[in-house]
Amino acid sequence: MKKWVPIASGLLAGFVAATISFADFSNSTNNQVASNSTKSDAEKVYVPFGEKDDYYLFASGGHSGQMFIYGVPSMRHIRTVPVFSPDSATGYGFDEHSKKMLGDYTWGDLHHPAFSETNGDYDGKYMFATDVGNSRAAAMDLETFTVKDIINVPNTSGPHCAAFVTQNTEYMFLPTRFAVPIGSEYKPLDDYSDQYRGVMSAVTFDQNKDKLNIAYQVALPPWSYDLSDAGKKSSADWAVMTTYNTEEATTNLEINASQADRDFIVLFNWKELEKMVADGQYDEVTGQKMIFPEKHKGGIYLVPVAKSPHGVDVTPDGKHFIASGKLAPSMTVFSFEKAFAAIEKQDFAGERNGIPIINYDSIMEREVNPENALGPLHTQFDDKGMAYTTMFISSEIVKWDPKTGETLDRVPVQYSPGHSVAAEGDTVAPDGKWLIALNKIAKDSYLSVGPSHPESMQLIDISGKMKVIQSSPVNPEPHYAQIIKADKIKTIEVYPKDENNKLATYKQDQARIERNGNEVHVYGIAMRSKFIFDAKAKRPDVIEVNQGDKVFIHLTNTDFDEDITHGFAINSYNLNIEVQPGQTNTIEFTADKAGTFPLYCTNFCSALHQEMTGYFLVKPKK
Amino acid sequence: MKKWVPIASGLLAGFVAATISFADFSNSTNNQVASNSTKSDAEKVYVPFGEKDDYYLFASGGHSGQMFIYGVPSMRHIRTVPVFSPDSATGYGFDEHSKKMLGDYTWGDLHHPAFSETNGDYDGKYMFATDVGNSRAAAMDLETFTVKDIINVPNTSGPHCAAFVTQNTEYMFLPTRFAVPIGSEYKPLDDYSDQYRGVMSAVTFDQNKDKLNIAYQVALPPWSYDLSDAGKKSSADWAVMTTYNTEEATTNLEINASQADRDFIVLFNWKELEKMVADGQYDEVTGQKMIFPEKHKGGIYLVPVAKSPHGVDVTPDGKHFIASGKLAPSMTVFSFEKAFAAIEKQDFAGERNGIPIINYDSIMEREVNPENALGPLHTQFDDKGMAYTTMFISSEIVKWDPKTGETLDRVPVQYSPGHSVAAEGDTVAPDGKWLIALNKIAKDSYLSVGPSHPESMQLIDISGKMKVIQSSPVNPEPHYAQIIKADKIKTIEVYPKDENNKLATYKQDQARIERNGNEVHVYGIAMRSKFIFDAKAKRPDVIEVNQGDKVFIHLTNTDFDEDITHGFAINSYNLNIEVQPGQTNTIEFTADKAGTFPLYCTNFCSALHQEMTGYFLVKPKK
Repeated sequence: MKKWVPIASGLLAGFVAATISFADFSNSTNNQVASNSTKSDAEKVYVPFGEKDDYYLFASGGHSGQMFIYGVPSMRHIRTVPVFSPDSATGYGFDEHSKKMLGDYTWGDLHHPAFSETNGDYDGKYMFATDVGNSRAAAMDLETFTVKDIINVPNTSGPHCAAFVTQNTEYMFLPTRFAVPIGSEYKPLDDYSDQYRGVMSAVTFDQNKDKLNIAYQVALPPWSYDLSDAGKKSSADWAVMTTYNTEEATTNLEINASQADRDFIVLFNWKELEKMVADGQYDEVTGQKMIFPEKHKGGIYLVPVAKSPHGVDVTPDGKHFIASGKLAPSMTVFSFEKAFAAIEKQDFAGERNGIPIINYDSIMEREVNPENALGPLHTQFDDKGMAYTTMFISSEIVKWDPKTGETLDRVPVQYSPGHSVAAEGDTVAPDGKWLIALNKIAKDSYLSVGPSHPESMQLIDISGKMKVIQSSPVNPEPHYAQIIKADKIKTIEVYPKDENNKLATYKQDQARIERNGNEVHVYGIAMRSKFIFDAKAKRPDVIEVNQGDKVFIHLTNTDFDEDITHGFAINSYNLNIEVQPGQTNTIEFTADKAGTFPLYCTNFCSALHQEMTGYFLVKPKK
Repeated sequence: MKKWVPIASGLLAGFVAATISFADFSNSTNNQVASNSTKSDAEKVYVPFGEKDDYYLFASGGHSGQMFIYGVPSMRHIRTVPVFSPDSATGYGFDEHSKKMLGDYTWGDLHHPAFSETNGDYDGKYMFATDVGNSRAAAMDLETFTVKDIINVPNTSGPHCAAFVTQNTEYMFLPTRFAVPIGSEYKPLDDYSDQYRGVMSAVTFDQNKDKLNIAYQVALPPWSYDLSDAGKKSSADWAVMTTYNTEEATTNLEINASQADRDFIVLFNWKELEKMVADGQYDEVTGQKMIFPEKHKGGIYLVPVAKSPHGVDVTPDGKHFIASGKLAPSMTVFSFEKAFAAIEKQDFAGERNGIPIINYDSIMEREVNPENALGPLHTQFDDKGMAYTTMFISSEIVKWDPKTGETLDRVPVQYSPGHSVAAEGDTVAPDGKWLIALNKIAKDSYLSVGPSHPESMQLIDISGKMKVIQSSPVNPEPHYAQIIKADKIKTIEVYPKDENNKLATYKQDQARIERNGNEVHVYGIAMRSKFIFDAKAKRPDVIEVNQGDKVFIHLTNTDFDEDITHGFAINSYNLNIEVQPGQTNTIEFTADKAGTFPLYCTNFCSALHQEMTGYFLVKPKK
């Protein structure tokens, strides 16, 4: 037990000074031929035309605010789906629906993606994500790969410690990395311990209405909540999250948040919290139902853990949770069953901020400390229940057995992995074939693109002895990712006709321009290879308005064919939207500039795409 | 000569109705093993860790407004470099320099990228690009892969027909796809032929000052200028561009711009235009020097060409230019030498809009019409002078000999290629190893991401019999690309110290906050793993201001180490910037919201990155 403390302290001093070192095990591992296959590495990752990848990789786009979709094993970047930031290409943030969702925000910091689950298995319906920059959560529909709803989460600042869903997508929990006064009010930092809080939000998603909702919040102590995971099977009613800066330092956290030998895992029973809320055990704060643990007792416990932990991961069988000590060289395996027993017996070692601390020794199963492995951050699992932990400092993945603590294999990665992700890795039944290291430092791995480098994702074949078989550069910055079997996702190719949509125009002769005072509504059609805004006009592809008019363009793509998306832009008017096959989309703006402005289809659609143009004429004010 | 007319008309009717058909030659070509190598396709494109790609691919990002950088032959996406649209990840459009460059524009439509050239060879110094959406041009520096300047081009609308540089980067020519009245004034479309113009801009770039500049403009007839290329060697003083809608149609261009059997190539001598401007042969219009060809005679000629051409490409030896008839099934080879002779002899067939028309038969070398090849768009070249033309309708690449017209090889691509790009393909000395088809339709090539599909780039080995060996999905929408040898680009890894930069702070004890009335200037440092804004304060990582203050944060990254970029964001304040190693960057905003807002490093930088935080406190107005 005491072993890791001095090592961790030395470590801390070491990487404050030098930060990143690179392990080199390449001779002993990378040059070996994988025993599980006669295919070369090149052939293992190659997906020829006519075949498709076996898995989707959904990687967070970090401070791009977006989600990156890759194919596995080819590691080809298929698409960037806009989530928290506007996207010029798809008109996300320009059309009315997405403009309203984004509000005034033009950037985001998407940290952790999470698939919706049914019985602890990814069900391929939705992808959730959180924004650390502006404290939001989003839900993406996987029929269309578009975001259906974004919610601003009040009272919180930076929901880094999310999103992980409970095993039937009852909740996403959004604990925050930064403590702020309730309502983000101005309060001096000298009053930090009294006035600041790390608020966790319990967010639900209504699949019928495509709406996110805040069920309740918990006013946790003013610590930094880092990562979380939901229980599974016998632990399904529970969730765990790591926390650091339990020192409650308010400056230079690099040093001051790393003083205590122990931080905590917060262990909570969401069914119990739900019941407390139903029973009125909460305060109404800024319009939210908020549980204050020092006042509304029950359901929340602290588990001591090696200093400044990062990841905490529940084993696929739901029996254990494993914490990684970012500033300690060890992973710690805890037993849910023993934790439940300790709680039952009130086997506590006092409390912090009104929350009981479970006796460490009562529930700790083992501390695992692989030789020379430094900076464990996050653990994934294979189909046999074996654990794979990323080592940020020693730049490697270590495979080990949670039941014995035995180190089974290790492979260097290039360089400094944060998370890793296994195929179906967060489900009750991981696939065990692939693991991808999400490396923070690419250094000289790829052709240089100047002082700002790409990140690096490395595909590791874990079917036999671990081997890195592909290195894939990636835009900044995947923090976490999830890998889902390709056949679980059922997209639509064309939006179905919606005769109830009053803004849609499916028949060419119904394309029209209606004026109501200074509001102009265009009910238009985009089709190969022309626009029809006013079927009866001399020039059906021209929109003429008066300077100052408020213009609404409701555009329907009447090409109900796979892959025939149209765009719509007006030169110099700073607007571009997309209408996917069968879709109706609205853009609204004020015609403030008088003059002659060409309009055109921005998304290549046919041999006569270049001819799909028209004019937007704005008569000057007299 | 008459052959293509009825075929083209039938064609037009055919794809107005059906638009896209897919050729299938796969049995005869794709299943053959490439004769030039014993490597499998998988091995040819595989670049293992420790090795690097041989070439950079710079692909236009279309209506994303950005540039996509890929490695060849691996076809891995290395980086998206922001050009015409803001970028949340890098803070492009958020920091002062890029915010000023972008102005009010939040989207762009980047069409054609062009490397700077020396003696007709890519010199690896700069990449230029144009924005069809908002009529801009940009220059990207290839030491840092960042945009140094953006210019708004007045009097024009949609510089689609650009950018191609002259052989020593004297000029980029920006003719436009859309005709507008000079100054984009409001003019009825009934007055189109009299009042609208297709203005071409001659843009220069000052490499010492990193500044783009408009040298002069030419008020061409109100036609659509589509693509262009600069001459080489003996034709170096000349440039060519295609134009369609010489019918001057103002509505339903799909039909009305395809009536005439012939459109034109515009052939012009930029040295002569330069001299005319020096001699005062121009009018001053809206602050620009503008040549009106009907009035200022000389230097500009028309060459008749098969209807609605798309690409026009100069052969590497500079002796010929090849036009592709989008609505005709043929490529036409013209001789520069014969054109010069015809001009000398005034061998003209009348004029259009005051511009002489060169006799077609006098300069046409051959019309090339490969069997069943439909929709030729754009031609590239190999090291032996052989031509490769994309066929949009029949979905294939045809290899042919410009000297004989003989079809040498053909390979199907999936599907509907617009441009293709050869390694060093626009230089005087193409490499001849790789060709990439930029396909407009991916259809079912990749895992589906909903109704809006990715585009598709396919790598073709042209060292022997042509063979598609890799299919790479790509975000919308590469229109054109250029491929450069990797060793031509010399990036820097760290910004050098600039002791003359008054906004930079390199010494920790000099980090300070200065107040001047309601302006607050923060001279701060970002370093592993902390911010220092005020070295002498109790909490050096806290910025406290009053509500309504104008805040300037000048942040210097003092980690002069490869790949250690820091980010800086303030929660809920909608701002994020990046400081690359050694760089100083400024962000300016008004502290309009009172309260407590965490600030943090957004770009993962070290094991203690999570601890690199602080607070932005805004005291409320009384």
